[in-house]
Amino acid sequence: MEKSTPDSDNEENRQKSSGTHFSVTPWNVEGKIDYDQFAKNAGLKFIDDELKDRIIKHTGTLHFMIKRGIYYTHRELDWLINEYEKGNKFYVYTGIAPSGSMTIGHLIPFILTQWLQEKFGVEVYIQIPDEEKFLAKKDPSFTLEKGHELAYDDALNIIALGFDPKKTKIFLDTEYAGKLYKEAVKVAKHITFSTVKDAFGLGNDSNIGWIFYTSMQAVPAFLKSAEEGRNIPCLIPLAIDQDVHFRLARDVIEKLGYYKPAIMHAKFLPGLDGSSKMSASNPLNTIYLNDSPEAVAKKIGRALTGQQPTAELQRKYGGDPEKCVVCQYYRYLFEPDDKKLEEIFEAERNGTMLAGTHKAELTAAINRFLEDLRKKKEAAKLIIDEFIVKG
Amino acid sequence: MEKSTPDSDNEENRQKSSGTHFSVTPWNVEGKIDYDQFAKNAGLKFIDDELKDRIIKHTGTLHFMIKRGIYYTHRELDWLINEYEKGNKFYVYTGIAPSGSMTIGHLIPFILTQWLQEKFGVEVYIQIPDEEKFLAKKDPSFTLEKGHELAYDDALNIIALGFDPKKTKIFLDTEYAGKLYKEAVKVAKHITFSTVKDAFGLGNDSNIGWIFYTSMQAVPAFLKSAEEGRNIPCLIPLAIDQDVHFRLARDVIEKLGYYKPAIMHAKFLPGLDGSSKMSASNPLNTIYLNDSPEAVAKKIGRALTGQQPTAELQRKYGGDPEKCVVCQYYRYLFEPDDKKLEEIFEAERNGTMLAGTHKAELTAAINRFLEDLRKKKEAAKLIIDEFIVKG
Repeated sequence: MEKSTPDSDNEENRQKSSGTHFSVTPWNVEGKIDYDQFAKNAGLKFIDDELKDRIIKHTGTLHFMIKRGIYYTHRELDWLINEYEKGNKFYVYTGIAPSGSMTIGHLIPFILTQWLQEKFGVEVYIQIPDEEKFLAKKDPSFTLEKGHELAYDDALNIIALGFDPKKTKIFLDTEYAGKLYKEAVKVAKHITFSTVKDAFGLGNDSNIGWIFYTSMQAVPAFLKSAEEGRNIPCLIPLAIDQDVHFRLARDVIEKLGYYKPAIMHAKFLPGLDGSSKMSASNPLNTIYLNDSPEAVAKKIGRALTGQQPTAELQRKYGGDPEKCVVCQYYRYLFEPDDKKLEEIFEAERNGTMLAGTHKAELTAAINRFLEDLRKKKEAAKLIIDEFIVKG
Repeated sequence: MEKSTPDSDNEENRQKSSGTHFSVTPWNVEGKIDYDQFAKNAGLKFIDDELKDRIIKHTGTLHFMIKRGIYYTHRELDWLINEYEKGNKFYVYTGIAPSGSMTIGHLIPFILTQWLQEKFGVEVYIQIPDEEKFLAKKDPSFTLEKGHELAYDDALNIIALGFDPKKTKIFLDTEYAGKLYKEAVKVAKHITFSTVKDAFGLGNDSNIGWIFYTSMQAVPAFLKSAEEGRNIPCLIPLAIDQDVHFRLARDVIEKLGYYKPAIMHAKFLPGLDGSSKMSASNPLNTIYLNDSPEAVAKKIGRALTGQQPTAELQRKYGGDPEKCVVCQYYRYLFEPDDKKLEEIFEAERNGTMLAGTHKAELTAAINRFLEDLRKKKEAAKLIIDEFIVKG
C-alpha cells in the first residue's frame, strides 16, 4: 500500500522521529530516512531469517523484495502464519490514493501482493480512495472528479500486474461508500480529534473530511470479516508512511471484535537524485508509468550513481552500489534474478561497468518493463469490470 | 426537521445566546428559550404577514402551524417563492435522527412537510441519519444497529402521516452512503475543525465521525440538484436547534455552485412541565408515539396548566392559555380548527373550563390521534419499500 504524498500546506503535518533528521507522514517525507530508527520509533519487528524460512515453507521460494530487505519490518506477520498453519486463511488488503500518473515506486506493494495471491491462493482487497488527495491537497484544480478519473487509470495499472479477477476486489471510496461508511463510523467513534492531531499532525485548520478519512482507510482491514460474519486474518503490505493509519486502526479494529491486521512494511524506492523517496509530486526525480522511452532515458541519464567522478577513476577504484540509484532500481524492481543482480553490483564495485553503459542498460530494462505493462494495461481495459465492485 | 437531543457528555457542547439564559445546540437545549432573541442572534427573518399572504396565494390556505407562529422565522423563503413563481419548483428536505420512540414533538416538521407536498405538489427527501446518535452519545448500549432499527420505526411513523410514495424518498445514512459520501466530502473540504468546534461546541475529545457528521446532513439540501445536473431550490423545515448545521452548510453549498437552501424554523413543543422543549431523553416530560392510552392520561394528568391553584379561584380569575401546556398542545398539534382553539383558550381564560375536564379532553384527543396514527403505521408496513431508497 502506497497512498502517496500530496503537497501538505500544513506546517504541523510532520512527525519528527526523535533524535534524527527525517520525518515521515502519509502526506510528507523529508530528510534521509534512517529505516532502523523508524522501525524502533514505531515499534516494528524486523522480518528475520526465521520468519523468512516460515514463509518459504509455504511458498517454496521467497519474493526478491522480501529476500533483499525491501520489505524489512512487520507487525504480527508471525501470528498470521500461525493462523494460516491452523487452516485460518488470510486475505490481503492494499491500496493507492490516486494523485497523478503512478510511479514505478507505487508498484512495490502491488507486485508483492500479486505474488502473495499467487503463492498463498488468497483473496485481495484493493482500496483506491479517490477522495483522499482531494481532501488533503489545497490545490483547487485537484477536484474530486480528477481523483475519480485517476483512480480508474490506477486500477488498470494494478490489474496489468496479473491479479486474478476471481480473487480480487478493487473499489473506489466514492463508489463503495455504501459498504464502507457504515463500518467507518464504527471506527471513527473510537478515534478523537486529539488522536489524529497527534498521529497525522492535523490542525484546527484541517478540514473535517481529512480528519475523518483515516476511518475509511481502516475499513478494508476487517471488511471481509464483517461481510462474512466470521473473523478472517488480514495482511497489509504498505510503505512505511502508511503505518500510522494502522497504528491507530489496529487497536480500534480489535475493540470492534476483529483480528488486528498484520502488516509488512516496505522501504521507499529512492528518488533519481538518491533522496529517500521517489515522490509523485516531483517529476524530475521520478519515473512515471506513462513516461515515454525518451523521457526515461533522459531521467536515468541524470540519475545519481555510486561511481567515481571520471571513467578513469571508476576503472581504478570502482563504485558503491549501495549509493548508486541505478543499482538500487535493479535491486528494487528490475532485476529479480539474484545472480544477475550480484553481477551488476560487482561490475559497479570493480569498475568494469561505466556509468554510460550502466544507465543505458537500466533504461532499456525499464522501457521493456513499461512497454510490457502498457500492453497489459490495454488488455486490462477489457476485464476491468470483473475487478471493480460498487455498493 | 427535528434531529433531536442525545445526552451530550461534553460540557463544551453549548452555545450560549449572548445576554440570555438559554442555550440551544443540536445535542442540548437548556433554559427558557427567548425565541425572538434566538432569531436575532442567528440572523433569521420573521415569517411576516406579507410572506404568509404570498404562501396563501399558492396554497389557498395557510397551515395552522404557520398561521399560529409555530413556524416563525425563515432564511430566504421569500426567494424560494420568487423562484416558484418563475416556474422553478422547489423540493423539501427534512429528517430525524433516531434516538428512541418518536415523540409528538418530532411530528411537527413532518406534518408541515406533508402539507407542503400536498399543496405545492413537490418532492420530499427525508434523511434518517441512523449513525448520528451512535456518534454523539457516549452510552455504549446505543449501537449502530440500534440506530438502524429505530430508523425503520421512525420511517413507518413518517409514512403514516400521509406522504405520497411517488414523490417521497426516505433514506438512512448507512444505506444511502453510496450516494451521500461522495457529496459529503465536497462539503467537508470547506469546513475546518475550528468551524465545527465553534459552531457545535465540539472539542479535541470529540470523535472524528461526529466531527464529520454535519457534512452528511448537508448533502440532501443539494442532492437533487447534483443528481439532476441542474439547480433546484430546496426548502428545509426544521426545529431551531438544527439551524446551525445549515448556517454552515448554506455558504458551502453556494461554493459548490448550488442554490443555498431556504429554511423555515419551528419553535419546540414544550415539555409537560412547561419547559422549552419536549426532550426525547426525558420520559416523564414527554409523550411518545408508542405511549399507551393510560400512560398518556397519567402524563397529561401531571401537565402544567395556566390555571389558578383551586377550582374556585380559577372560576373567579380564570387562567393563562399561554402558560398552559394543555392549551399549547392543542395549539401546536391537536386542534387545527382556529375557531375551536379560540373557544378552548377562552374557556381557560374565563375560568369555565377546569383543569380536570381540560386534561381529560386533551388526553382523549391525543389518544384518538395516536390510535389513528398507529393504524396508519400498520398500513405503512405494506408500502415502506416504495419510500426507502438505497445506494
